[in-house]
Amino acid sequence: MLHGADYNPEQWLHNPAIFEQDLALMKEAHINVVSIGIFSWVTLEPEEGTFTFEWLDTVMDRLATEGISAFLATPTGARPAWMSQKYPEVLRVTAARQRNLHGERHNHCMTSPVYREKTALINTLLTERYKDHPALIGWHISNEYGGDCHCDNCQTAFREFLKDKYKTLEALNHAWWTTFWSHTYTDWEQIESPAPHGEKSVHGLALDWKRFVTSQTIDFYLHEVASIRQAGSDLLVTTNFMEAFEGLDYWQFAKYVDVISWDSYPTWHTPGKALETAVWTAFNHDLMRSLKGGQPFMLMESTPAQTNWQPVSKLKKPGMHELSSLQAIAHGSDTVQYFQWRQSRGSSEKFHGAVISHEGTNKTRVFQDVARLGSRLTELDDVVGTTVPAKAAIMFDWDNRWAIKESQGPRNQGMYYEETVREHYQILWERGIPTDVISPKHALHSYDLVIVPMLYMMTEQTASALEQYVKQGGTLVTTYWSGVVDERDLTYLGGRAKAFTRAIGVFPEEIDGLYEEERNLISGREGSAVEGAVKHLCEIASTTGADVLATYEEDFYAGHPAFTKHSYEHGTAFYVAARPEMDLLRKLYDVVLEEAEVKAAISVAIPSGVSVQKRSDGVHDYVFVMNLTEEPQELGFVPELDRTVVLKGYEAVVEKVSVKVSSEVTPLKGGQG
Amino acid sequence: MLHGADYNPEQWLHNPAIFEQDLALMKEAHINVVSIGIFSWVTLEPEEGTFTFEWLDTVMDRLATEGISAFLATPTGARPAWMSQKYPEVLRVTAARQRNLHGERHNHCMTSPVYREKTALINTLLTERYKDHPALIGWHISNEYGGDCHCDNCQTAFREFLKDKYKTLEALNHAWWTTFWSHTYTDWEQIESPAPHGEKSVHGLALDWKRFVTSQTIDFYLHEVASIRQAGSDLLVTTNFMEAFEGLDYWQFAKYVDVISWDSYPTWHTPGKALETAVWTAFNHDLMRSLKGGQPFMLMESTPAQTNWQPVSKLKKPGMHELSSLQAIAHGSDTVQYFQWRQSRGSSEKFHGAVISHEGTNKTRVFQDVARLGSRLTELDDVVGTTVPAKAAIMFDWDNRWAIKESQGPRNQGMYYEETVREHYQILWERGIPTDVISPKHALHSYDLVIVPMLYMMTEQTASALEQYVKQGGTLVTTYWSGVVDERDLTYLGGRAKAFTRAIGVFPEEIDGLYEEERNLISGREGSAVEGAVKHLCEIASTTGADVLATYEEDFYAGHPAFTKHSYEHGTAFYVAARPEMDLLRKLYDVVLEEAEVKAAISVAIPSGVSVQKRSDGVHDYVFVMNLTEEPQELGFVPELDRTVVLKGYEAVVEKVSVKVSSEVTPLKGGQG
Amino acid sequence: MLHGADYNPEQWLHNPAIFEQDLALMKEAHINVVSIGIFSWVTLEPEEGTFTFEWLDTVMDRLATEGISAFLATPTGARPAWMSQKYPEVLRVTAARQRNLHGERHNHCMTSPVYREKTALINTLLTERYKDHPALIGWHISNEYGGDCHCDNCQTAFREFLKDKYKTLEALNHAWWTTFWSHTYTDWEQIESPAPHGEKSVHGLALDWKRFVTSQTIDFYLHEVASIRQAGSDLLVTTNFMEAFEGLDYWQFAKYVDVISWDSYPTWHTPGKALETAVWTAFNHDLMRSLKGGQPFMLMESTPAQTNWQPVSKLKKPGMHELSSLQAIAHGSDTVQYFQWRQSRGSSEKFHGAVISHEGTNKTRVFQDVARLGSRLTELDDVVGTTVPAKAAIMFDWDNRWAIKESQGPRNQGMYYEETVREHYQILWERGIPTDVISPKHALHSYDLVIVPMLYMMTEQTASALEQYVKQGGTLVTTYWSGVVDERDLTYLGGRAKAFTRAIGVFPEEIDGLYEEERNLISGREGSAVEGAVKHLCEIASTTGADVLATYEEDFYAGHPAFTKHSYEHGTAFYVAARPEMDLLRKLYDVVLEEAEVKAAISVAIPSGVSVQKRSDGVHDYVFVMNLTEEPQELGFVPELDRTVVLKGYEAVVEKVSVKVSSEVTPLKGGQG
Repeated sequence: MLHGADYNPEQWLHNPAIFEQDLALMKEAHINVVSIGIFSWVTLEPEEGTFTFEWLDTVMDRLATEGISAFLATPTGARPAWMSQKYPEVLRVTAARQRNLHGERHNHCMTSPVYREKTALINTLLTERYKDHPALIGWHISNEYGGDCHCDNCQTAFREFLKDKYKTLEALNHAWWTTFWSHTYTDWEQIESPAPHGEKSVHGLALDWKRFVTSQTIDFYLHEVASIRQAGSDLLVTTNFMEAFEGLDYWQFAKYVDVISWDSYPTWHTPGKALETAVWTAFNHDLMRSLKGGQPFMLMESTPAQTNWQPVSKLKKPGMHELSSLQAIAHGSDTVQYFQWRQSRGSSEKFHGAVISHEGTNKTRVFQDVARLGSRLTELDDVVGTTVPAKAAIMFDWDNRWAIKESQGPRNQGMYYEETVREHYQILWERGIPTDVISPKHALHSYDLVIVPMLYMMTEQTASALEQYVKQGGTLVTTYWSGVVDERDLTYLGGRAKAFTRAIGVFPEEIDGLYEEERNLISGREGSAVEGAVKHLCEIASTTGADVLATYEEDFYAGHPAFTKHSYEHGTAFYVAARPEMDLLRKLYDVVLEEAEVKAAISVAIPSGVSVQKRSDGVHDYVFVMNLTEEPQELGFVPELDRTVVLKGYEAVVEKVSVKVSSEVTPLKGGQG
Repeated sequence: MLHGADYNPEQWLHNPAIFEQDLALMKEAHINVVSIGIFSWVTLEPEEGTFTFEWLDTVMDRLATEGISAFLATPTGARPAWMSQKYPEVLRVTAARQRNLHGERHNHCMTSPVYREKTALINTLLTERYKDHPALIGWHISNEYGGDCHCDNCQTAFREFLKDKYKTLEALNHAWWTTFWSHTYTDWEQIESPAPHGEKSVHGLALDWKRFVTSQTIDFYLHEVASIRQAGSDLLVTTNFMEAFEGLDYWQFAKYVDVISWDSYPTWHTPGKALETAVWTAFNHDLMRSLKGGQPFMLMESTPAQTNWQPVSKLKKPGMHELSSLQAIAHGSDTVQYFQWRQSRGSSEKFHGAVISHEGTNKTRVFQDVARLGSRLTELDDVVGTTVPAKAAIMFDWDNRWAIKESQGPRNQGMYYEETVREHYQILWERGIPTDVISPKHALHSYDLVIVPMLYMMTEQTASALEQYVKQGGTLVTTYWSGVVDERDLTYLGGRAKAFTRAIGVFPEEIDGLYEEERNLISGREGSAVEGAVKHLCEIASTTGADVLATYEEDFYAGHPAFTKHSYEHGTAFYVAARPEMDLLRKLYDVVLEEAEVKAAISVAIPSGVSVQKRSDGVHDYVFVMNLTEEPQELGFVPELDRTVVLKGYEAVVEKVSVKVSSEVTPLKGGQG
Repeated sequence: MLHGADYNPEQWLHNPAIFEQDLALMKEAHINVVSIGIFSWVTLEPEEGTFTFEWLDTVMDRLATEGISAFLATPTGARPAWMSQKYPEVLRVTAARQRNLHGERHNHCMTSPVYREKTALINTLLTERYKDHPALIGWHISNEYGGDCHCDNCQTAFREFLKDKYKTLEALNHAWWTTFWSHTYTDWEQIESPAPHGEKSVHGLALDWKRFVTSQTIDFYLHEVASIRQAGSDLLVTTNFMEAFEGLDYWQFAKYVDVISWDSYPTWHTPGKALETAVWTAFNHDLMRSLKGGQPFMLMESTPAQTNWQPVSKLKKPGMHELSSLQAIAHGSDTVQYFQWRQSRGSSEKFHGAVISHEGTNKTRVFQDVARLGSRLTELDDVVGTTVPAKAAIMFDWDNRWAIKESQGPRNQGMYYEETVREHYQILWERGIPTDVISPKHALHSYDLVIVPMLYMMTEQTASALEQYVKQGGTLVTTYWSGVVDERDLTYLGGRAKAFTRAIGVFPEEIDGLYEEERNLISGREGSAVEGAVKHLCEIASTTGADVLATYEEDFYAGHPAFTKHSYEHGTAFYVAARPEMDLLRKLYDVVLEEAEVKAAISVAIPSGVSVQKRSDGVHDYVFVMNLTEEPQELGFVPELDRTVVLKGYEAVVEKVSVKVSSEVTPLKGGQG
């Protein structure tokens, strides 16, 4: 189990004693890996063509001596000022077509030939020098890729991307529906990226620009990796992803990294949002594990203390550091790593928490927390390499989130796609059901339950796959505002994607937008427990085969279906017509889970705010029981663990049990509320 | 009675079956007119000088065959990308002096010689080809004119406009009071349009810029019309106005259109704002009718379903489509037209409601609503050409709204001019009193009651006209913050416009700004029902002839006049010193209407949320009784209609009655509350 | 005692009768001084090199005849349009690197050689012409200096400033901690001022830019003064400062003016903020007096009526004009001056209050208020030149406020530095204790009590000075987030400034950010009155010598010190670990003031909202008792004044008493609550 931190010794080269103290304290804190060189370009190449690797040699050598491994970064996340000064083309151009001045980080043009040339050179030299170094275990490519550039080079690359995709302007014009507003393009050169003072309303253009940005970013990443491979290193490569980052389609990007790694900075302890924060963090961990088909991931960055860039820098309460680290492991992480090892003394991140604070010793609460966790992690080596045995899956798609947000209507005040996905996910989280996150292209047959919230953009292939899944015995849950457009953001003529409406046995006719404070009510038939409030969007549908489990109670569409169940060949499709409040959603899932029979990690009721997750190697299961609340929680006797579980506030227990014992568990009815 | 829609068949040229279905469904929905070609430029001229009218020939011919008329648009609301590419000067320049990229619509420079040349050419060709086409009944010039351009061509045109207006820099400097802050211009070339990074504080400059924009837009419009006239068409011309659009002085523009047409998109069903929405929409209809002296107007656009560009796309509840269409007719419209006939499949307006939705048939609720209304409209042909016999008028002026907002002080947090006009208007609306909207230049003698809220900018001519109106027997209601500046935005020395203060018998001394949550109270003499709260602005005045009907109760100006009545020769002037809450305003108007004796459409009490309007040809009156609420409403027996009126939620009845019967009606005291 | 106004007769040159009326009304209002020529450049130099002083000759001559003195302004606050037109380099460039268009005022580049040349010329000519004029008593340099310019000339000047300060790039890189994010500068030319599209995150750069702006503004000011001195005038020079203006370090600027003058525009009567407004205004007066070591200042501008640029233009209630003018005098002003004498007729400030309104006579409430005050001021001539005998001081520093705000963390949602200073100051204000405002470089030994809130940026010299002050018997109050960084914004390694932590006997370990609505509670030992809520920031500290007077009650740091007292050699240091609500802060100061024994102006309890201040010449004290509330207030018999004090709403009394009597006063325990 790796336990480590971003390490930036170049900030302390003027004081060699610091380096020695660092190494000693790393040992004390059970640190066995560091990420190094992330922002070192100017320290490695202080002027063009002049390289100063000596300090890094020393650092790498001493790390090796101390038995600490290193992920060596390509330094392309921030470049030296001399490069911007000499080659302005490396500077990013904003959507308003203003070329940035030098500054900040992550602001280079990924198309720039000069930037690619300079990147190739430094990456090659780093690889040649360190590829066989005993400390080196992998490559950390750049840092938190993101953003876009609208320079002329990028405009040209975008047009090439479009030519490659559409072949003809006629196809592009049809896909983007440019006849309206007289937008038909008659020359490829007329196409420009979206701009605040240019085109903002052609949804297809906006969508393809986002796809291009992902494509171009991956292309730059692959350019970076190519230098390493060509220079002779076959060590694993990764780049650190960010929390459900909207700017890049990680389903695409994940194909090209050897292992997923990501940076997790939950705003723990935000008043009134403790549960939401815990669930959203869990979802992101599950997403990261799922990006490469369940393969364990790396928690590349997390703060050992507070952050300095969130609105309020809250301290972690006692226990939270260990708990949040174990939460990552419970969902599939094989590492716990921090940003950063030693707190900067100046500039923008000087108040970001670090293992070693300005105080400078091992006496702080934070250092003690880290050291204690480091010790506990040494007991969890068996967990490394195990997977999460999920039989439930929830769909989450970048194309869809982009398209929902880019479109105008039916609710410009907020469609809440991500929040809706989180709410459905939360139901499974609350009941201890291991869950995968899937893209629309995933095979579905291995799942007992597939949840597809608000899949507005749904290809015909996906619609067919969902239909097939149901026909062949799966349980599907889906919602309003699904199957509306194809991959071009063109609406399905005839209403919605046909295979999709066949699968759900319902035909959506209209969708009503509700103001923030408006609610409708839904209720089930006599005796049904289904009853509660819905908000934001209410779809009005007629049934074409489905059973109506609940109807609207108010407005002119009172009596119309609000929750339906379609028994379709060997399977079942549930359809939720409006956005439920959480209490109601839990009731809907009582019905769903009775049908789906998907397994939970344990067979006893789980108190609100407690998470139960499971990893497994097929022989043993590792069951994590985590109390995300400040108060003590009791689960009573848990048969699968053969013990009584009582947790203090923010306590987590991990139990290793034989697979045989734990495989019989059925989730309890009744949620956490 | 015209019933029609914007029709964009160029979006479906790839599928001819759609066109045939369109024609069939138009007949079914009683559609007898379409607006066509609004965004067709690139389809008509796909490359410079290459024209492709054939598809339009086909459409026009088939429309004629089917007995459907057409308003043919000049396509200048959006131009082809090739034009922006070849002639960047056609692109608008923002106030920040950045030239837009190609994109959106309505973003051309109206001064550009190239744009004018290209416009003249396409307009001429369209006219020559279709002027005698049997389907053609009029010209739809461009679309929703608006916005400004700050390019060099426009700067030059602005300076010419100023030279023409002021003749000398000395006159301009005096009008703009440029000695302060050392702003005196010594060369016409020093004058530049307002800019966020330039001049923001010279009110006269800002005001003249807005006047220039209106002037230049009309000039461009006239340039468009000239091509049509020169090419030999004398059919009527119109351009579609927008809801009390602030950017253009429609009092000026109205002179140059043959018939007023406008686009109405009320946000029906907004929680807590149902009444306000109904009243504001009614006001706009009355404004549009009044723009050309009471001549009926066209409802050129309205949505048959939801919009897609408002914050929340609410569906229309059953009945609302018919009700809102009849409301337009009640106030003077002779048409009901939609945007648009068939929903776009892609791009920015794909979720804007249309008669034919993506579903594609006549089975939808929306189609059925439209068809049913179409049928009802065939019974209202007699209404066409009738007018609204208003004896009450409310003043609303663009120069004044611009000047109030541009000025700094006395309340930068909000002066609420439009809202105040709406509130005074609402009183008459609630009581069923037909009302004209007038500009400061209107003759007043035909009105029994003239309401002039917040006429901050008041020329000496207007002040005299108001004084004469009162002297000669009229009833005037006016308020605080009136008569402050002349047409140059220069304050009247001596306090306020003299004729105005003579008319009201009151001299305003100071004006106090109140914070949003602050209130003062006013109350009348012992036994008076006048009592209630005022807010935002409290003028402190002394009387010079007026009777004090109510005084302030609080703050240091307690006891000062808050509501006065001045009997002046043959007439009466009421003055309201502060902004009343609606309940209080109703009480003030109880006093006013007792004096004014202005007639209502019916003589029975009108429940809250019900609107009664009247059109007349002098022989018959057409009385519209409309329930803008969701609940049923009873008016009991209405003598003028010789029937009992009970209305379901959102129901409207229209009764044709002899003028003789209905002309004796006096409004009831006591508002709707 | 000077009583005067900004006078802009060039706005009325077209109407000579106005000038004569002005002079007559000035006499009536007891006006004895005017500030003239502030925005007269274009009237003095209507075209380049053509000067028209004649009108000013007339004005100056008549002023002299009437016995009215003049401060003559250099007109550089706004320049003629011809200059911008001919020399665009005089136009300021924004941080986004866009050169402004001509417009507004205060928007010149202070580095521009052309602007300096033009400034020198006009200033020289003015001086030569008027230096011996009998009306002239001093120079009003420019107007309300502020803002920055990012043009190439300024970039060069900034780099020179940095070279002069740091000598080497190595020193600069270390100070700015540029190794992080690879920001190391390798060429001075790489350094550019902060920009929204450039560098935003290097705190040292941002901080030095602000210091440069102060330096460059003073340099421009000195350039202006040099012309006057070289042309032979030795009269006093001043420039009008603004309310705690953040953009310029007035501690630096104050050295170069002969007398402090400032423009005070409190938003009196803001609902719920009456007390806060009064206290903040008092603080600013004390600050202005303190800027030059207690020397009386000038109230250069205040409005005799409402303003026009605040969100709501509230009228002053009766009494407030006199009260607020006397408040300035109570804190050290020797003048009461207004902006402006006569209300402009047009343009941006036409609704700013003036002594003569648009009404144009002496009959207005405002004129009468001014005239009455003018009369009262003639009785206060003895006060001129007296000082405020303060034994308490509160520290307020520009470097610190810039650094706190520029830093990221620990609470980006708001650190509330100024508000915190105001709250501590308010305690002394409420108890009638005369208070100086001091910078970190001030000598402390003369004070009985020194308050140092949130001195985040603390040099080693200041830390030592504070330690020495305590050791030698002083009483120090300080707070959380103090002593964190040195003057480079580099954190102190080892935790905090050592001398500082020695002084307070406490070592801060962590600091917790609280969300807006979060609170912790603190309470003292059994029997202590210290009990109440804290918010925003809670520091967690361990004691190293201090006594714990109160501890936290909640969260994981319950029981940790929240309020401590350190008896250290001859003195005492109090430390407040979190931001208290006002009620709690009053209780903490009950403890502090028992220790500090600092004197109040009177010995009786002061009701809430009443301010008691004192000026003295060593022989006589002038005690001001001012009721800042609308309600009457009773103080009972005040021994020092030998009278009973009962005040009407907004009433102020001024008593001249022998020093002997009043020097024995001790402040009462128990605040105003």
